[in-house]
Amino acid sequence: MQINRHYLDLKDSYLFATIAKKVNAYQSANPQAKLIRLGIGDVTLPLCQEVIQALHGAVDEMAVKETFRGYAPDEQGYPFLKQAIREYYAGHGVKLEENEILVSDGAKSDLGNILDIFSEDNTVLIPDPVYPVYVDTNVMAGRKVLFMDATEENGFLPLPDRSVKADLIYICSPNNPTGAVYTREQLKEWVGYANEQGAIILYDAAYECFIQDEKLPRSIFEIEGARTCAIEFCSFSKMAGFTGTRCGYTTIPNELVRDGQSIQKLWLRRQTTKFNGVAYIVQKAALAVFTAEGQRQIKENLGYYMENARTIARAMEEMGIWFTGGEHSPYIWLKCPNGMKSWDFFDLLLEQANVVGTPGAGFGKNGEGFFRLTAFGDKQSTVEAVERMKKLLK
Amino acid sequence: MQINRHYLDLKDSYLFATIAKKVNAYQSANPQAKLIRLGIGDVTLPLCQEVIQALHGAVDEMAVKETFRGYAPDEQGYPFLKQAIREYYAGHGVKLEENEILVSDGAKSDLGNILDIFSEDNTVLIPDPVYPVYVDTNVMAGRKVLFMDATEENGFLPLPDRSVKADLIYICSPNNPTGAVYTREQLKEWVGYANEQGAIILYDAAYECFIQDEKLPRSIFEIEGARTCAIEFCSFSKMAGFTGTRCGYTTIPNELVRDGQSIQKLWLRRQTTKFNGVAYIVQKAALAVFTAEGQRQIKENLGYYMENARTIARAMEEMGIWFTGGEHSPYIWLKCPNGMKSWDFFDLLLEQANVVGTPGAGFGKNGEGFFRLTAFGDKQSTVEAVERMKKLLK
Repeated sequence: MQINRHYLDLKDSYLFATIAKKVNAYQSANPQAKLIRLGIGDVTLPLCQEVIQALHGAVDEMAVKETFRGYAPDEQGYPFLKQAIREYYAGHGVKLEENEILVSDGAKSDLGNILDIFSEDNTVLIPDPVYPVYVDTNVMAGRKVLFMDATEENGFLPLPDRSVKADLIYICSPNNPTGAVYTREQLKEWVGYANEQGAIILYDAAYECFIQDEKLPRSIFEIEGARTCAIEFCSFSKMAGFTGTRCGYTTIPNELVRDGQSIQKLWLRRQTTKFNGVAYIVQKAALAVFTAEGQRQIKENLGYYMENARTIARAMEEMGIWFTGGEHSPYIWLKCPNGMKSWDFFDLLLEQANVVGTPGAGFGKNGEGFFRLTAFGDKQSTVEAVERMKKLLK
Repeated sequence: MQINRHYLDLKDSYLFATIAKKVNAYQSANPQAKLIRLGIGDVTLPLCQEVIQALHGAVDEMAVKETFRGYAPDEQGYPFLKQAIREYYAGHGVKLEENEILVSDGAKSDLGNILDIFSEDNTVLIPDPVYPVYVDTNVMAGRKVLFMDATEENGFLPLPDRSVKADLIYICSPNNPTGAVYTREQLKEWVGYANEQGAIILYDAAYECFIQDEKLPRSIFEIEGARTCAIEFCSFSKMAGFTGTRCGYTTIPNELVRDGQSIQKLWLRRQTTKFNGVAYIVQKAALAVFTAEGQRQIKENLGYYMENARTIARAMEEMGIWFTGGEHSPYIWLKCPNGMKSWDFFDLLLEQANVVGTPGAGFGKNGEGFFRLTAFGDKQSTVEAVERMKKLLK
């Protein structure tokens, strides 16, 4: 009996768990401190009324034999939801077939589990800094990970280096943690590179809903050639506040074939074997996000968060602190003042301003010296947090 | 770029998908036929009122900022639910710590995903016939699978063979598909064998709620020594009709250590990295199953299914057909009459009685010549199905 020893190669603890421990220790020692949390990317606004009504309606269906739903269809997602997602994509000019959309309990699950269908011998290319889950899920399988440098110089948007050979390429745009967004021209370069190499781009679009400028791509499938080299992961978590309700979807084009196999069919086989679908009531809740009224309500919530983002961004400008994000993203990625290291700045903010952020170093070596703030707090707390920061750092 | 080529070793299609195709083809060709489905193990009774009320209440909490819930705690399950599960186990004499219980979206997910934390070099021991997911999830990882024969002679309850060396051992009791249940003495033999070998038993207790006789074990942890060699998987799917609502839990004792590592900590690391928890509203629904009124209501539903099981069992007895199960299980595992093969009997029942069952051969080589019927249909349909069978087979 042996465990999967690759797990021993993982770094000691998940970033947000470490932060939670530090914060809890500080709060215990200083029970009077009124902490403002602009750290973990969790939403704070309640589910919108359209979603709430859909949930109540679906719960009532589950109470009656005639409308009760058991196991969901093997196709991974009820047709009603797939159809609504399809129309949402069509709204920004992307044509998808219903079978290309596979519904799940969230982008995090799919981003981790998709690796199951790829060989462990594949080489993986991951930007640094990045959402830690990309690296950890590959370390768990013992895959070779190459990093591409995202830096102040390239605006945290690295482009392909043709001397590097990779099989799986992670792109997250709008980016977590940096808030930087690729343009269509930049994504075209990535699509060209992936098709040349026979690589697959794992495109994390969990933050597409924050894009304000129609010229910026919301989906990799807006780029010609992407259908033969990309998988897109998306989620209701940020779009509609589903972090505690759990629904996402992954899009795999029919044309995506490697080793003579349909990648979509492999994924379907993985999911029918190791997953049993998303709760009916949750799929009905997700459907409500796409009604006209649902769209109006979620946009109101997204607007609320974007105002917070502007509040933080304006404060950074006033303080003369360099940052990315905050415009098409709920994240503000700032350069720690006075050349401070990330965790030192974390401690300073926690102890002197009682503001909790996320140390950039937790996202990779290029994150050292940077820091992430999120726009998911409430308005008043966000305003107070930046006031405290301005007072501390002036 | 290579796919995971072990996927190519999987048999062509998932059993229930094949059945669905055959049934759909028959129904299309015979639109007037009134099919009765006693095939796939899906429940048909609606969620009980106690669960429905809990869902409505939790949805209302999600509508208000002060009670809205985002990401669930990293510990995999809200303390309120873990505490209720703990008390449920205490009710049949099993003492667990809260941290030993990890909540998920269902036993199927956990049974598949748990393999992630074990080496691919481990040898796996699986009964034949068996729930196909045990085999398929191991084939996907390229693990060596050994089978133990479950046959008419051993009552479909194989016992350890000490000449066989294995690292991971699957036990499902009450069994899917055979309905057979291990006694405490028999499980003691398995626990002894696993501890001797340093193996781990993956104990699938998804059907424990159907056990009627207090002398039969509902949990492997009723057996002395199990805390150093077993993981138990359980689910609300059959217990409370959650097949379309999705909640389960996995129990890993603090004492379970292999390779110097806590198996529970490895699983927690896997889950915090590749999973984002179960919806708050679903966890509140699961909690409602454990109130006194919830228990009364689900027992009423379980009693309804068990009456169906008795209806089928009585008919088998009348027809002189050999079977197991039906007493502490919703499954009746019968020997096809006149030495018929499983799929021939499937076609005969489908075409001549318009009854859909599950061919035993789909569960492994020892399933050939056997057939599974389930008690999850409605009462009237079940009575009609056995009448049709009696007429056909008399």
